[in-house]
Amino acid sequence: MDYGDWMRREFVELSKSLGFRFTPLREIEDRLARIRKGMRREELQALLVVQKMDFYYLSGTTQDGLLFVPLEGEPLLMIKRELERAKAESSLKNVVPINSARDLPNLIKSHWGSLPKNLGLEFDMLPVKDYFRYQNIFPGLKLTDASLIIREARKIKSSFEIDLMRAAGEIGKKVYGEGKKVLKEGMTEIEFGGLLEASAKAHGHEGLLRVRSLNYEAYTWHVLSGPTGGIVSQSDSPMGGLGLSPAFPVGASLKAMKAHEPILVDFGTCYHGYQVDETRMFSIGKMEKKFIDAYDACREIHDAILDEVKPGADCEGIFKKTLQLAEKLGYKNSYLGPPGLQTRFVAHGIGLELNELPFIAQGQSYLLEEGITFSLEPKIVFPGEGSVGIENTVVVTKNGYEILTPLEQKIFEV
Amino acid sequence: MDYGDWMRREFVELSKSLGFRFTPLREIEDRLARIRKGMRREELQALLVVQKMDFYYLSGTTQDGLLFVPLEGEPLLMIKRELERAKAESSLKNVVPINSARDLPNLIKSHWGSLPKNLGLEFDMLPVKDYFRYQNIFPGLKLTDASLIIREARKIKSSFEIDLMRAAGEIGKKVYGEGKKVLKEGMTEIEFGGLLEASAKAHGHEGLLRVRSLNYEAYTWHVLSGPTGGIVSQSDSPMGGLGLSPAFPVGASLKAMKAHEPILVDFGTCYHGYQVDETRMFSIGKMEKKFIDAYDACREIHDAILDEVKPGADCEGIFKKTLQLAEKLGYKNSYLGPPGLQTRFVAHGIGLELNELPFIAQGQSYLLEEGITFSLEPKIVFPGEGSVGIENTVVVTKNGYEILTPLEQKIFEV
Repeated sequence: MDYGDWMRREFVELSKSLGFRFTPLREIEDRLARIRKGMRREELQALLVVQKMDFYYLSGTTQDGLLFVPLEGEPLLMIKRELERAKAESSLKNVVPINSARDLPNLIKSHWGSLPKNLGLEFDMLPVKDYFRYQNIFPGLKLTDASLIIREARKIKSSFEIDLMRAAGEIGKKVYGEGKKVLKEGMTEIEFGGLLEASAKAHGHEGLLRVRSLNYEAYTWHVLSGPTGGIVSQSDSPMGGLGLSPAFPVGASLKAMKAHEPILVDFGTCYHGYQVDETRMFSIGKMEKKFIDAYDACREIHDAILDEVKPGADCEGIFKKTLQLAEKLGYKNSYLGPPGLQTRFVAHGIGLELNELPFIAQGQSYLLEEGITFSLEPKIVFPGEGSVGIENTVVVTKNGYEILTPLEQKIFEV
Repeated sequence: MDYGDWMRREFVELSKSLGFRFTPLREIEDRLARIRKGMRREELQALLVVQKMDFYYLSGTTQDGLLFVPLEGEPLLMIKRELERAKAESSLKNVVPINSARDLPNLIKSHWGSLPKNLGLEFDMLPVKDYFRYQNIFPGLKLTDASLIIREARKIKSSFEIDLMRAAGEIGKKVYGEGKKVLKEGMTEIEFGGLLEASAKAHGHEGLLRVRSLNYEAYTWHVLSGPTGGIVSQSDSPMGGLGLSPAFPVGASLKAMKAHEPILVDFGTCYHGYQVDETRMFSIGKMEKKFIDAYDACREIHDAILDEVKPGADCEGIFKKTLQLAEKLGYKNSYLGPPGLQTRFVAHGIGLELNELPFIAQGQSYLLEEGITFSLEPKIVFPGEGSVGIENTVVVTKNGYEILTPLEQKIFEV
């Protein structure tokens, strides 16, 4: 059978029957309008979108390619390999094949009439080698950093995006429920983490959690029990766990879980690229009072933050209030990590990536807006003993917030 | 309890009891010697190693940090967050904290006496933004691309590395065996993929497959059944599958698997950062003859390639022979993909990353050497119907090769 024929005849029906949701043109146009506001402000004539999630955000497909976005005129989607699939997935009108980046000037000229005077690229992710290649391909053209323009636009979620995050939250709810059924004394952290992940996948979770970073990696099997919960590790988070080796020194380990230990499960779920992040405590039998009290403190801090959440609230102000509350509750030296290693954020923006804008953090003095989504995670760490915490993902609404991870807050005791 | 006290007293014992293997100093010194050969050839006075897997390769830890490697003198490992853990994991002698990249010149000067005249960085992965930051931090110092020096050195594996890859291969063998026990008619591709991954994790598999690329992502749930096996998708591989959404358009989908379909399982396993990759066919009941014949052809091509593998064999020559053999066997238009979308490689180097050097591919005329490891994957694709293939990971030995994925080659029929 001819490949193109099959794709054109069968692909859309098959993928829709299996739950695919394609990004409508109207949605893409709204996103382009927000991006172009930033381009206008920065006097940018065009963008060349390279990074996978930015590319998906503005095209609706993740087929390998490049997206040219002029300030005025139609975008041009250029596909390196699977043109038929890109055409089926993207609602953009101009979709053409590209063999090599060297063809860019000609493709842009024949689409847009000329080359732009300047071109924005994602300097926060684009490798230096590619930057030099674009300099050679576009001699005399000014290349500038457009990553903040894109990240700022992506910060505000549409109802289409929030729906996908709600669907991710529903998957997460099922996963934690099934986790309660399978957790057993003597099971290793990683075995439990693997079963949670298998359950999530069966419900349509996409498995990879994307982070905008050269080196930071995300993963769902963040299961820490007793002393492994007291290990900080490399990422800028309150606790990283032991992990499986020096090459993967975060998350679940081969440690067997014991009765009465605090078992922290921080599981992110991904649906159509959109992620939600949540944390709950599990225990086999009752946890020690020390950990129950600390978990109650995390819940109190979590609820106090949510009381502040509405458009116009200042991120840094909220963060500082949590420091005061943690101190008042007796956790000054264990809130968000052990002394000397305490993190300086209590919430991170989330969507297509786990580290989107904004951060509710020290030094991040900006205001919440309607449509911003973030994951809020007050945590308390006791070195050598364990850690506790709660996390939910929320969206800022007109008058407050909506929780996108609708899971009960009590300890999952088995 | 004080965090540092606990780390110094308990961490090494706990992690060793749970299977951690630390990279010995002798091993690191051998690697540094290979890197320095390349540095000498390129007249580089020093490297600043930034990318996570290069950093692990040369330090034994993946704690967040930067590694300064002078052509002569001791390396300096600078750690951003978890100094105690880095000290425990790395066998390097000089391990210091660093708060900000701005401290680099002073740290280097006090360690090495002066600043080098030039500095190699990984231009293939380093973001442009960081490159400009280093230019500001080191005015007048020439920054050059050292990625190929590092990739070339990493190409040849030591016996320490091959042992870790063998251990990954043993995990993979268990996973396929357990897969045969759980596969059932009506199960979705992703449910099966999730169970394979859970089984692998329970045996110590690390879950993330690392790729050296801005946008390419790897994942273990590459389970394609019947028509989804005929979909190409974005990566440069013979078939990508349907996936779960336009945001994750590769690998397993929510399609239910049927009896007699070809079910291709391409599962990578990771142990201590080292990966092996392997593919086998599953079926529920007997596959159609067409697919059995094509699978036999893949095995014939696979075995014919291995007959050629030894130090001195030319990668491109081997690739071209497979094209001839595929044509002779009647698969000219389906070998490595459908017409117009056929890939131009049949094997990829593998180790800490899935796309290491070398490639057995069109245009890659270089010679195999002892210690090179690669994954060999002849595959045949029928659009709209399905795909078949076999894959093993091998190491080139003095006189031939050793298979690191010792799994039987016959179809896993349930």
